[in-house]
Amino acid sequence: MIKQNNEESYIFIADFHSLTSSKDSELRKENTRAVAAAWLAFGLDIEKTVFYRQSRRPEVAELTWYLSCFTPFPMLANAHSFKDKSERLADVNAGLFIYPVLMSADILLYSANLVPVGKDQLQHLEMCRDIAAAFNHQVGEELVTLPEPRISEEVKTIPGTDGQKMSKSYNNFIDIFLPEKELKKNVNSIITDSTPLEEPKNPDVCNVFKLYSLIATPEQTAQMRKNYLGGNYGYGHAKKEFMQLILDKYATERKAFDSYMSNPEEIERKLSAGEEKAKATSMALLQKVRTKLGFA
Amino acid sequence: MIKQNNEESYIFIADFHSLTSSKDSELRKENTRAVAAAWLAFGLDIEKTVFYRQSRRPEVAELTWYLSCFTPFPMLANAHSFKDKSERLADVNAGLFIYPVLMSADILLYSANLVPVGKDQLQHLEMCRDIAAAFNHQVGEELVTLPEPRISEEVKTIPGTDGQKMSKSYNNFIDIFLPEKELKKNVNSIITDSTPLEEPKNPDVCNVFKLYSLIATPEQTAQMRKNYLGGNYGYGHAKKEFMQLILDKYATERKAFDSYMSNPEEIERKLSAGEEKAKATSMALLQKVRTKLGFA
Repeated sequence: MIKQNNEESYIFIADFHSLTSSKDSELRKENTRAVAAAWLAFGLDIEKTVFYRQSRRPEVAELTWYLSCFTPFPMLANAHSFKDKSERLADVNAGLFIYPVLMSADILLYSANLVPVGKDQLQHLEMCRDIAAAFNHQVGEELVTLPEPRISEEVKTIPGTDGQKMSKSYNNFIDIFLPEKELKKNVNSIITDSTPLEEPKNPDVCNVFKLYSLIATPEQTAQMRKNYLGGNYGYGHAKKEFMQLILDKYATERKAFDSYMSNPEEIERKLSAGEEKAKATSMALLQKVRTKLGFA
Repeated sequence: MIKQNNEESYIFIADFHSLTSSKDSELRKENTRAVAAAWLAFGLDIEKTVFYRQSRRPEVAELTWYLSCFTPFPMLANAHSFKDKSERLADVNAGLFIYPVLMSADILLYSANLVPVGKDQLQHLEMCRDIAAAFNHQVGEELVTLPEPRISEEVKTIPGTDGQKMSKSYNNFIDIFLPEKELKKNVNSIITDSTPLEEPKNPDVCNVFKLYSLIATPEQTAQMRKNYLGGNYGYGHAKKEFMQLILDKYATERKAFDSYMSNPEEIERKLSAGEEKAKATSMALLQKVRTKLGFA
């Protein structure tokens, strides 16, 4: 269940950003729907949180243009994430380059005070603050709000099936909403070492154990640790238990997910409501920026 | 008087682009009004031409994002204009870098078949065609129209007051709409060499003569040439005649310009009408692109 307090909060599905890496529009629609269904299945209260698709508030593209004119070119050229991606990817497009400006627009358009980030995203938030500061300085007014990072102690880098950071872009994630047969395949794809069945195993270097312990109770984790250390317990057994834990622990959410997925109109209705709410905030900020820059 | 045939045509004031070089919003509003007044003073028929401000059709910013994801990063990094500007300007911002993508969006949003360009702008049109071709290829459909350049024989590079290409960015232009006193100062700022008054002068290397001959009749130009070659005719004389020619030739337009400038509501009305017309075309194309990319 998602914890939601009384802070005004915004959660969006970054489908504009997805265009930098994928041109497959059917996949994009499917992913957008699935991400929405996943949040809703976990009980996201859309009365408390403005939940919307990035692309349905195209004001963000206009703000991106404005901000890009206040963003030093070298800041983007030297960003870790761009350097990393431009070395790794075949398609190094200009969208990838201005990615951090769009990300900043996402934040500034809603005057966010706090942005929950992982440590690896701190540089992007730093860039957002720099762009916002440059903007405010040049227009001579505190027009956009400098956001603060919120790094939760609970937020960890989750290992993917290959041991790298779990990420949709790396295609190394466990999808807890998959039908049983596919989930089994997904869990079985977790990479383990070749320690023979009978030998004791080190839980602390094993991706299966790490993932298991993220969702297990302390008791379950202690038991699993024992199993690893005791020998005669194979990775196949561990995967099976991990799979079963997913099925048990997320039974309600899996059911809700399937129900949402078979009812796309319901998802559409909920997202549209969020997009209507988001509009009031985004248009108010955009209108201020337009006026200040001489476009009103 | 502007020649307008029966082709469907679009003329816009590129105020979004102006943000890459100027953050002065009062100046931007003033310039936008003056550019509109100038077109209208020359009799632009807004029934025949869709005349609008770029910023009032923000669809172009959304299309810019889409296109940027189909634009190879190196294409922009290697563009002449960016290299030139990044060497010349103190403020090298990211907007300057994606400038050609916004320019492409301006063209593609209205499915332009022909774009009148000067030779120095051919590379930008080439980039627009490349971006459009990459886009169509990747989405598997001729969704955007590849524009052709139209280089008119009559279009020349006009020398500015300093002999370089006349350009608002270089601040070396003759503003024929200035009040007499300021126009005089403007014309007097044209750089000439130091040949003494009594000596014959070479008209073909003189900026005053070049500018004069652009707007004079062949007879007037022939007479001016004679004056230069005959000696005892100073650059001061030539400037005075050039100034008088502007006042005589553009008397009607100057009056119309002043009238528009003192009636901003009239300008606003005409531009708004154009923006309404532009919307039908821009939204139709944008909607097609959204659908194709999985954002509809």
